Amino acid sequence: MLVRDIAEALGAKLDGDGDIAIDRLVHPAWAERPSDLAVAMSPQAAAALAQTKAHAVLVAAAAPPPPRSFSAVIAITEPRMALARLTALFDAGPPHDGGIHPTAVIAPDATLGPDVSIGAYTTIGARSRIGAGTRILPQVTIGADVTIGGQGLIHSGVRIGHNCRIGDRVIIHSNAVIGADGFSFAPDLMSATAFTAAVAVQRVHSLGNVVIGDDVEIGACSTIDRATLESTRIGRGSKIDDHVHIGHNVIIGESCILCGMVGISGSVVIGDRVRLGGGVGVGDHVRIGDQAVVAAGSGVGSDVAPGAFVSGYPAQPHARSVEQHLYLGRQKRLHDKVAAMASRLDELERVVGRTTKK
Amino acid sequence: MLVRDIAEALGAKLDGDGDIAIDRLVHPAWAERPSDLAVAMSPQAAAALAQTKAHAVLVAAAAPPPPRSFSAVIAITEPRMALARLTALFDAGPPHDGGIHPTAVIAPDATLGPDVSIGAYTTIGARSRIGAGTRILPQVTIGADVTIGGQGLIHSGVRIGHNCRIGDRVIIHSNAVIGADGFSFAPDLMSATAFTAAVAVQRVHSLGNVVIGDDVEIGACSTIDRATLESTRIGRGSKIDDHVHIGHNVIIGESCILCGMVGISGSVVIGDRVRLGGGVGVGDHVRIGDQAVVAAGSGVGSDVAPGAFVSGYPAQPHARSVEQHLYLGRQKRLHDKVAAMASRLDELERVVGRTTKK
Amino acid sequence: MLVRDIAEALGAKLDGDGDIAIDRLVHPAWAERPSDLAVAMSPQAAAALAQTKAHAVLVAAAAPPPPRSFSAVIAITEPRMALARLTALFDAGPPHDGGIHPTAVIAPDATLGPDVSIGAYTTIGARSRIGAGTRILPQVTIGADVTIGGQGLIHSGVRIGHNCRIGDRVIIHSNAVIGADGFSFAPDLMSATAFTAAVAVQRVHSLGNVVIGDDVEIGACSTIDRATLESTRIGRGSKIDDHVHIGHNVIIGESCILCGMVGISGSVVIGDRVRLGGGVGVGDHVRIGDQAVVAAGSGVGSDVAPGAFVSGYPAQPHARSVEQHLYLGRQKRLHDKVAAMASRLDELERVVGRTTKK
Repeated sequence: MLVRDIAEALGAKLDGDGDIAIDRLVHPAWAERPSDLAVAMSPQAAAALAQTKAHAVLVAAAAPPPPRSFSAVIAITEPRMALARLTALFDAGPPHDGGIHPTAVIAPDATLGPDVSIGAYTTIGARSRIGAGTRILPQVTIGADVTIGGQGLIHSGVRIGHNCRIGDRVIIHSNAVIGADGFSFAPDLMSATAFTAAVAVQRVHSLGNVVIGDDVEIGACSTIDRATLESTRIGRGSKIDDHVHIGHNVIIGESCILCGMVGISGSVVIGDRVRLGGGVGVGDHVRIGDQAVVAAGSGVGSDVAPGAFVSGYPAQPHARSVEQHLYLGRQKRLHDKVAAMASRLDELERVVGRTTKK
Repeated sequence: MLVRDIAEALGAKLDGDGDIAIDRLVHPAWAERPSDLAVAMSPQAAAALAQTKAHAVLVAAAAPPPPRSFSAVIAITEPRMALARLTALFDAGPPHDGGIHPTAVIAPDATLGPDVSIGAYTTIGARSRIGAGTRILPQVTIGADVTIGGQGLIHSGVRIGHNCRIGDRVIIHSNAVIGADGFSFAPDLMSATAFTAAVAVQRVHSLGNVVIGDDVEIGACSTIDRATLESTRIGRGSKIDDHVHIGHNVIIGESCILCGMVGISGSVVIGDRVRLGGGVGVGDHVRIGDQAVVAAGSGVGSDVAPGAFVSGYPAQPHARSVEQHLYLGRQKRLHDKVAAMASRLDELERVVGRTTKK
Repeated sequence: MLVRDIAEALGAKLDGDGDIAIDRLVHPAWAERPSDLAVAMSPQAAAALAQTKAHAVLVAAAAPPPPRSFSAVIAITEPRMALARLTALFDAGPPHDGGIHPTAVIAPDATLGPDVSIGAYTTIGARSRIGAGTRILPQVTIGADVTIGGQGLIHSGVRIGHNCRIGDRVIIHSNAVIGADGFSFAPDLMSATAFTAAVAVQRVHSLGNVVIGDDVEIGACSTIDRATLESTRIGRGSKIDDHVHIGHNVIIGESCILCGMVGISGSVVIGDRVRLGGGVGVGDHVRIGDQAVVAAGSGVGSDVAPGAFVSGYPAQPHARSVEQHLYLGRQKRLHDKVAAMASRLDELERVVGRTTKK
């Protein structure tokens, strides 16, 4: 790819030679050859420009000019957005051979679209359908009656249980599990006031499935459990980090962001564009409205209104959390002040000649 | 299965034609054919009965009568218990071919009971024994000298390390890991007051195993580490959700409930029928008594008495947590009140003609 | 191994017959044969010595003498360090056949050092290199251009993505994932004040890798994401427990201890010999200095100085957390005291004949 094409794809200003061919993005300190583009968006990386072996560099337009001249300089204005576009240009994905590996065990009645690739030792169950261009890496297990859309990428060790439905362009990272059984028992043990040796615990079986919309991404070692009778649903465009747990019957809207180690209990309903910080826990049957934000580490035990920003345990409006935390830091001072006031009261009572202490 | 048989299995009242054959449970809105039983236990689902295509419906006896007549109506009294029985009736489990897949790598001296089924690419180590009727799905790894009881279900990607012992009717969900090494070092680094560059960290190796009782269920991506010299033990009937971590040397009693993302440090001892909410953490060597309950998100740093209900971080009796939380919300008011009282003291002192402030 | 050799390896005192051959370490209650060494470091285990069938026993020198005589008694002074050395002596690792299993799929241009063993169904990608003596168990996936050092142990189900570099003597437990993509989007959604339906979420692709130093151990189901352009780095000798998540671009120093379920957000920088208790969360771009300690369950939202001991949410100096917690428990008493003082003020004002209340 030519420097000129990169600048154009980023909508960025180019100074110098647009004809340099680039085949790799690197930190300035790592550049080794003329085809490396040194990416210096941070002050630290920009400092390394002085010594870089790169001929072409990418810098932030708002930063001071590079410490020396280069054959080509691309200056970008919105660093993070530029980084998204730039990395997309150069992401060839995990190297793979393409085609269907001879060791893959594919049910005779499974249907594979054009240009599907399937890695070594992957198994695909009866009647499952894989859409055009989807890449499935080695050692994936896909159950019976599963549907996966086109242009997807399923990494090694992913398990997709029977009957689950996955949209187009979905990325699922290694060792994620879609469609394990829900964790549901009778009686409702967590709320039972009398769970004694006499109570026989009955398993509520999971007969439903998981339905995942288009353009969803699911992180490594994340789990999405199947519903009891219906579908656990993840809306279009939602992004889920590593180690996230989504319980049975949960419904998550579109374009949500669930950071690492978020845990969602059963039957939770989450709207669109909701953002949950790392490690957030949500109790069962809670409802979280559109565009709500929950700060990292919070525990949500009751409904959250659309657009609300909540934090803490239990989660409450963030301004309230901040206020409480402020006063928490002043407890000692308050105790001391009250003690001093008590002494003054003693003295006043002595002077006035009247004790009111009990 | 006939409607009559279902009603009888649930101990529920049946009105109408008991001879309708049912082959599927569905939400009322999803019913498509006469063999669908529309399950309407919630008010939302009951509302959908008006438009359902189902001929047979299941409703809560306590709810208002269905909005129109049906060929058959089953009315249940205890919804959650009925759901457990009902879903058990219809759970055929993950579809599988049965038998031993030709690609399974089974040690010549491993022993398989009658009716064991083993999926593609599963490996079973030397001298291991699998009990009658146990189903092992594709791509499971079972080490040497492992014992698994009868009628179990081991999902894809489960890893069971050497020497571990699993009881009868145990269900282990995908990508769970039984028998990884414990996380133990010398000196005891978390409590060491002087961990300097001079300290050489020594690994405490894990020579013990994991022993899991009958009727235990273990969730997807959960880990149970092997003991140092003895056994990490999970008692009969305990249920463990997804992403649960159980450290080395831990002993858990019978019929416990561990919700998602619970983390149990090394050498913890937990009694019978203990319930841990989602995300609970338990520090090492802590003891939790029979029938104790720990609220979701709590951190348990010291022993919990039998039957106690604790919450918070560090966990304390729940009533105390509630009280503290109540006062937390009143901090501003208290500060304001104290400030007003200080003014009154100033004024009183002025009137009395005596200053006691320091 | 002879009792004499064990005592010598531990630097421990031996009384009795040093020529007894030992082939197993057991709890005193489990001893069955003369070649069992009964290990009784805890008071509980020591109590079991009265009934043990072992002829040779290992006890703590500081404990009361054993309740009866034995053929050989090893008395150790530093129990935990002795346990590390003792278990290392007897750890043969998971039993395996050695050699390259015929079902392993190894790229023709991959390079295997001497004495490498590779289990069934493991796949190794193009140009990858495995160092001498490293054992790779069944069903591991190693991508293209991966380097793994010598004397390592990679357990079943581990996924190592393309381009990652692993040092010597590294142990990675089952189902851990090294080199999944980072969780990074544009705009920066968690900090965006206006994330509306109009915002198109762009994926920041992960073109970097993961670099893991010598002597690192990584727990089961842990994930270490690859960097955007450079390397996510784990320093030499650091130990990582199960279910730990390490985000993209993170740099962790040497000899750190990360307990179970720790979550590290993107671009965090952690020094040497840092200890993070179970369940600790660290926000993105935070820096934690050398030898800092973070108590279990804490949430770290801002930088931590070298050597600091912090706790709580948000994490603060531990002494401050303890103080705040102490006062938290006294809130009711303070309210009551303030209420009593208000009554005294009322009475004083009545006596003095002057009301100052508003």
